[in-house]
Amino acid sequence: MRKVILIPDSFKGTMSSCEICSIMEQAIHRHLPGVKVVSIPVADGGEGSVDCFLSAVGGIKQNVKVKDPYFKEIDSFYGLLPDGTAIVEMAACAGLPLVENNKSATKTTTYGVGQLIAHAAQAGCKRIIIGLGGSATNDGGTGAAAALGVKFKNSKGESFVPVGGTLKDIVHIDVSGLLPKLKEIELVAMCDIDNPLCGIHGAAHVFGPQKGADPETVKLLDAGLLNLAKVVKVDLGKDICDLAGAGAAGGMGGGMVAFLGAKLQMGIETILDTVGFDELLKDADLVFSGEGKIDFQSLRGKVVIGVARRTKKAGVPLIAVVGDIGDNIEAAYNEGISGIFSINRVAVPFDESKNRSKDDLRLTIDNIIRFIQSLKK
Amino acid sequence: MRKVILIPDSFKGTMSSCEICSIMEQAIHRHLPGVKVVSIPVADGGEGSVDCFLSAVGGIKQNVKVKDPYFKEIDSFYGLLPDGTAIVEMAACAGLPLVENNKSATKTTTYGVGQLIAHAAQAGCKRIIIGLGGSATNDGGTGAAAALGVKFKNSKGESFVPVGGTLKDIVHIDVSGLLPKLKEIELVAMCDIDNPLCGIHGAAHVFGPQKGADPETVKLLDAGLLNLAKVVKVDLGKDICDLAGAGAAGGMGGGMVAFLGAKLQMGIETILDTVGFDELLKDADLVFSGEGKIDFQSLRGKVVIGVARRTKKAGVPLIAVVGDIGDNIEAAYNEGISGIFSINRVAVPFDESKNRSKDDLRLTIDNIIRFIQSLKK
Repeated sequence: MRKVILIPDSFKGTMSSCEICSIMEQAIHRHLPGVKVVSIPVADGGEGSVDCFLSAVGGIKQNVKVKDPYFKEIDSFYGLLPDGTAIVEMAACAGLPLVENNKSATKTTTYGVGQLIAHAAQAGCKRIIIGLGGSATNDGGTGAAAALGVKFKNSKGESFVPVGGTLKDIVHIDVSGLLPKLKEIELVAMCDIDNPLCGIHGAAHVFGPQKGADPETVKLLDAGLLNLAKVVKVDLGKDICDLAGAGAAGGMGGGMVAFLGAKLQMGIETILDTVGFDELLKDADLVFSGEGKIDFQSLRGKVVIGVARRTKKAGVPLIAVVGDIGDNIEAAYNEGISGIFSINRVAVPFDESKNRSKDDLRLTIDNIIRFIQSLKK
Repeated sequence: MRKVILIPDSFKGTMSSCEICSIMEQAIHRHLPGVKVVSIPVADGGEGSVDCFLSAVGGIKQNVKVKDPYFKEIDSFYGLLPDGTAIVEMAACAGLPLVENNKSATKTTTYGVGQLIAHAAQAGCKRIIIGLGGSATNDGGTGAAAALGVKFKNSKGESFVPVGGTLKDIVHIDVSGLLPKLKEIELVAMCDIDNPLCGIHGAAHVFGPQKGADPETVKLLDAGLLNLAKVVKVDLGKDICDLAGAGAAGGMGGGMVAFLGAKLQMGIETILDTVGFDELLKDADLVFSGEGKIDFQSLRGKVVIGVARRTKKAGVPLIAVVGDIGDNIEAAYNEGISGIFSINRVAVPFDESKNRSKDDLRLTIDNIIRFIQSLKK
């Protein structure tokens, strides 16, 4: 064996994808010190996504001062990859951890995200990936759009920067002032959820409560998003109300599509394309992927399946190492997974097993490598 | 792949070794319909041991009327293998299930076991394997010996058949009347425990309670075994008091050594020799073994390790499929195991996992076979 690729998702509640890569790499090198290990920790678009990309393909972290969720200036950053792609992680200036105990989905803004995008555009990036996830906001991406030159006007014709609580006041949207450079840039919003912008499955109803919204506020926020969708429909000719994924990150998904013409894309596809996965596969002997749980219902859009479709085409064996294995996963094999191994080594509940997950993962990889080597003898 | 050998121990509390073989075979044949599968369900010497041997190598069940633990006549049996070996399972006439709620370690006898041995000897068997396990008795094997011609005498010089409660009355043992044919027969007692005959780690103290003995009775039984050991020492010149394994099956281990010159042997070694395992390995591509739990402390004498020592010599890969994987099992790989896989697929406690163990085993084998096939592509 000469080259192994590691491309795991995080195991929610136990290990980050970076930690998993590190444990896997050590276990592999213990038995195969000469093998080249390529680590691609999978980013989910939320906090840590920039680090994941940088760890996978190299590049630098660009520090920028932008506005935080309450319009105060903070030190933020985005990632600049060697191929000129920028990775903007909205959590870096609009994330929940930044507001701590002062959550308010009616008052917070994505303005800083627009500033990061503007900086990347001015720096000459030809592709910008926006990681949606972990946001404290519900402004439908209007703040980010405003930072990039879009004008939102109220009934008096006054321009303002909307927040969740004032989306209802928008009567007109003017995109003529949008930063010209954006026209030449490919914009991709990483988004693993299907929620529409409005209604009971929309951003406000599903994610509002975790951003501090009580039931009354949820209704106010949903009405605001509905108003935004109506004005977008009239002024920009785009229908984002029921668009799958538009409800991601407080409506940021819908806003990126409406104001910037961004493409909403499954995170794993974005990552595979960005790291040049197909090229990496050409001389790879084996790929490890993994996630906290694999099951039939969650096959769609999941990391392991996304990876499997590529490895199958390339004819490279793929091993899935997971926490739990759900029922009816026959389809996973059909998608190209060679073997699915749970890290559960003893019959104990998750409350106990999570405390031993790192050891269990290490020993599981150790066992698989020993096994493969033994079969090759 | 042309030939696969299955040689699992039972998973205590969930699946018998026969059930495990059957599930493994189905899972293998699903993907490899043409492969020859040799099933050797491992017998532990207790109930079901005869069936295990017959299932592994063929042969017939010989029905014999003998005495039960209370000297009443019952239908019992032993196994006759094609090579002329007899398998006597002491549970078949001296087992706990036969006494149901009428347990008494002071009154029960192994007389019937001696009758089964006598029948096998008269039938011309050149090797008799006696499975120790699951006994209702604590007679030190004196009942069995009596059935084979050994005389036990009390202080009045009267001959009697001792039971647990009357071992203390033995003052002299005369083996001159022992069935002559036994001299030409190799006798092997299958025994996986180390307990000595007497003392706090002996038969009475450790196993007496599960045979109905209260603390007072345990003392009585232990004193009886100690007396037996003393008389054996004086009359037969053999020291069985502290002999490892002598305490198996109410002292049956010690009795078989003292009266019949039997060899105490680890069960797995007996089985491997009896089924001709080394010969079977010659054209085998893969071996599956397994047990309820593999760990460092239990490596000694365990099925998987016993199998590993043979497969390692033969250069055939061995896969261990187990319930739980304990800590510090590095030594198991050194003994020759290629891979150790737990059937635990979800993080749940044993109370839950045992109910899904058959499915989990099937899917674990299914995954391993798919994986091996995939690597061979």
